[in-house]
Amino acid sequence: MGNTYTNLEQEFLEYYKQIESYSEAIKLMAWDLRTKAPKKGAQRRSETLSLLSQKTHELKTSDHMKKFIDELKNADNPVIRRSIELVEKEYNLSKKIPLNEYKEFVELTSQAETVWAEAREKSDFEMFRPYLEKIVAFNIKFAEYWGYKENRYDALLDNFEPGVTVKTLDQVFPKLRDDLSKLIQKVSNSSDKPNTEQILAHFPKEKQEEFSLKVLEKMGYDFEAGRLDETVHPFAINVNHDDVRVTTRYDENDFRTAVFGTVHEGGHALYEQGLDKDLYDTPVCEAISMGIHESQSLFWENFVGRNKAFWESYYDLFFEYAPESFKNIPIDQFYRSINEVKPSFIRIEADEMTYPLHIMIRYELEKGLINEEIEVKDLPQLWNDKMEEYLGIRPDNDADGVLQDVHWSGGDFGYFPSYALGYMYGAQLKTAMDQEVNIDQAIKNDDLSPIKSWLNEHIHQKGSMKQPLELLNEVTGEGLNPNHLINYLEEKYGKIYNW
Amino acid sequence: MGNTYTNLEQEFLEYYKQIESYSEAIKLMAWDLRTKAPKKGAQRRSETLSLLSQKTHELKTSDHMKKFIDELKNADNPVIRRSIELVEKEYNLSKKIPLNEYKEFVELTSQAETVWAEAREKSDFEMFRPYLEKIVAFNIKFAEYWGYKENRYDALLDNFEPGVTVKTLDQVFPKLRDDLSKLIQKVSNSSDKPNTEQILAHFPKEKQEEFSLKVLEKMGYDFEAGRLDETVHPFAINVNHDDVRVTTRYDENDFRTAVFGTVHEGGHALYEQGLDKDLYDTPVCEAISMGIHESQSLFWENFVGRNKAFWESYYDLFFEYAPESFKNIPIDQFYRSINEVKPSFIRIEADEMTYPLHIMIRYELEKGLINEEIEVKDLPQLWNDKMEEYLGIRPDNDADGVLQDVHWSGGDFGYFPSYALGYMYGAQLKTAMDQEVNIDQAIKNDDLSPIKSWLNEHIHQKGSMKQPLELLNEVTGEGLNPNHLINYLEEKYGKIYNW
Repeated sequence: MGNTYTNLEQEFLEYYKQIESYSEAIKLMAWDLRTKAPKKGAQRRSETLSLLSQKTHELKTSDHMKKFIDELKNADNPVIRRSIELVEKEYNLSKKIPLNEYKEFVELTSQAETVWAEAREKSDFEMFRPYLEKIVAFNIKFAEYWGYKENRYDALLDNFEPGVTVKTLDQVFPKLRDDLSKLIQKVSNSSDKPNTEQILAHFPKEKQEEFSLKVLEKMGYDFEAGRLDETVHPFAINVNHDDVRVTTRYDENDFRTAVFGTVHEGGHALYEQGLDKDLYDTPVCEAISMGIHESQSLFWENFVGRNKAFWESYYDLFFEYAPESFKNIPIDQFYRSINEVKPSFIRIEADEMTYPLHIMIRYELEKGLINEEIEVKDLPQLWNDKMEEYLGIRPDNDADGVLQDVHWSGGDFGYFPSYALGYMYGAQLKTAMDQEVNIDQAIKNDDLSPIKSWLNEHIHQKGSMKQPLELLNEVTGEGLNPNHLINYLEEKYGKIYNW
Repeated sequence: MGNTYTNLEQEFLEYYKQIESYSEAIKLMAWDLRTKAPKKGAQRRSETLSLLSQKTHELKTSDHMKKFIDELKNADNPVIRRSIELVEKEYNLSKKIPLNEYKEFVELTSQAETVWAEAREKSDFEMFRPYLEKIVAFNIKFAEYWGYKENRYDALLDNFEPGVTVKTLDQVFPKLRDDLSKLIQKVSNSSDKPNTEQILAHFPKEKQEEFSLKVLEKMGYDFEAGRLDETVHPFAINVNHDDVRVTTRYDENDFRTAVFGTVHEGGHALYEQGLDKDLYDTPVCEAISMGIHESQSLFWENFVGRNKAFWESYYDLFFEYAPESFKNIPIDQFYRSINEVKPSFIRIEADEMTYPLHIMIRYELEKGLINEEIEVKDLPQLWNDKMEEYLGIRPDNDADGVLQDVHWSGGDFGYFPSYALGYMYGAQLKTAMDQEVNIDQAIKNDDLSPIKSWLNEHIHQKGSMKQPLELLNEVTGEGLNPNHLINYLEEKYGKIYNW
């Protein structure tokens, strides 16, 4: 990839580096707020964050930036050409929204997050409703400013999954939804369900942490370019390209939370740590999309972490940290327990099979709201109806239903589909990887590097040179196809639930 | 204090808030680098730090700032007037140095720190010498740019201790030096020296940490506006006014390092946490000087933490964390052990009595270098001669001598005297406090708040409204006077060493 740049290109990259620097400060502050920061400092911190965000915004939408865009649009160097495409997209998105409306929106969502948190605590949707109505109205307006070809919701989707449209999703989501519902029915009809009682034994946090660190090490996570901390909501964050941190949550009565949470965030982190060093400090040196990011975390969490071979290989290692009582659990029973399928209300606690259905509900509701086919006031009822239809359970309060996710209060519409897309991408990548790498064998050899290397080569190294569906096509030879995920689940869970 | 501002004053404070925001980002990054940051991210981090420093520098020296200075110089509001004095001083200091020379200096010191670290490791002064020569030359040039009345070194001193000059120091330092030397002679002649063997028992780090946290709590440190972490070199840092963090170092074979280190940094932190909330986000809301800052840390460390009443009161509490063997140490023996006086090579490990002599050596050498009376090449020899003269010991390598401190490699000349000044200030403040607060009684009552409140009221709340010697005069009714420190040491150590 092009490492020699013209003077103007150099100048552009120097300019862009300022944006990266502000971004590093912002991300470190965000990490610190969620992990270490004392409570009372948060008020002043948020003012600092807002100043730095404003500076970043100014740099991204300046006349100087416009000049770079105009003059480098047709650069010979493909990295520069693609970089300009990416910054131009951001430039246009920002420029199309009147500044006063944008500021109003930022203020609204900042208030809405606080109101949402209280509303969820009180399970009081009415309290949050007026804010959500305004947020939806803003999203509709923004979508109109930005423009779209077929469906207004496309304008929002494109922010998270460039090139993916309602049309794309409607070709695959209904099939995924129906097939999953059928599989869940099979699970529910099974007379041979795993018993999770024994794996829910008390497991001291410190020991969970030690084991989590061990697993990250096995995955090839670079601890000299990262660290593991504890948070209420686990996340991975690239403070800078050589400083990619992960967090996890410990539940002393369910070790799965920490272990699979760590593997999941570790998967995100390997993506960031695997970006091509030649692309550092260019706009191309970024994860391609939210969905591709999620494909990496889910790949490691599900295809490696919840894989039978993994536990067969590392069961002895696990015993070094787990309480004595775990030694009484036969590996087969253990494996079935960690893969229990059980419809539940909360998305982030959902198992591998029911998870995508939580996304379907959100996608359908968002699409309806943005296209003005449904109204905010009807959301609780619609949410619960869909839960009942797809998952067979009905929340009896809004905290366990429509109020559970933070996303809408933060103004994010169009984000949720990426979670399900990531899952499908992941399964498609697995099919492709299976041609070249024997995942189970790599695990048995206690050497996961072939898995990591394959993902490095086919996904991470490429940064944002392509759009997600282009990359998918290049790597797997086909477009979005839910069958890989369905087949994987059918095969795996047929064995676990003996159907 | 004035909380109503004119429009222009508001505008100035808004402008200043940007500087504060950048400063918060910079300080958080610095804290993170020293506590948590993964190694590989440091390179990119330093580039980000340098960008943010540059932005701060631009804001401090802009035409916009100049306009505020000119227009608000004679403001009615005393907070604004003093604020303008403070920002004008910085403006002038920066403006007087040609930008290219400043950049060259920053680059030089950044290299010099790395070279110094290696030179110290190898105990090879010659390696560091050319860098130090250039740094001294720059400091001489800067002092000339900045100007001074009597002594070139005054221009540098003023950066750390505004209003303090060579003349001030030369009126007190020689007496302090001679009196201390005499006291140390008495200690050395004593036939009844404490035996520290028993207090050097192995003390697990976790327990030291728990006890350190307990002591911080007793001091009145606000944990909702701060936190304690571990570092190689302990420090306190005000990330923002409501986020003042401390760090400490644990030596499992000498608990004194962590406990007194924590109390020392806690003293710094109480200063920052005690600044007047009405002054927040004004330039006045800052510690007055390095010396006054040090007076606060040393106050707590020595007059509270190394006080006999403290250990008599909290000995049972200490036993809750200390290993069993400590219970065999009679309180009197314990107290004498933690106050052992023993000339040693390394300043930061020095005891209460020998510490100021380490500073004298540095002050005399710095003054000589800046006034071109001595040469860098002669430093190792001069250093060792002075060590022998004042402390009676001679380092046999430069790592334990002239190469031990980081300050010179970072370009800081004029800083060291603040350590000794802080100590004298502290003793003078103690004499003043003794008129109003019975320190020993407060400790016996297990309620240190009268001590903290007195310091809050007389020092912390005032921010930077005055210069250090003005404040000292206001609070103690006299100027710099080394006798308070001498008397304190004489009385305390006479009892410990039975002379």
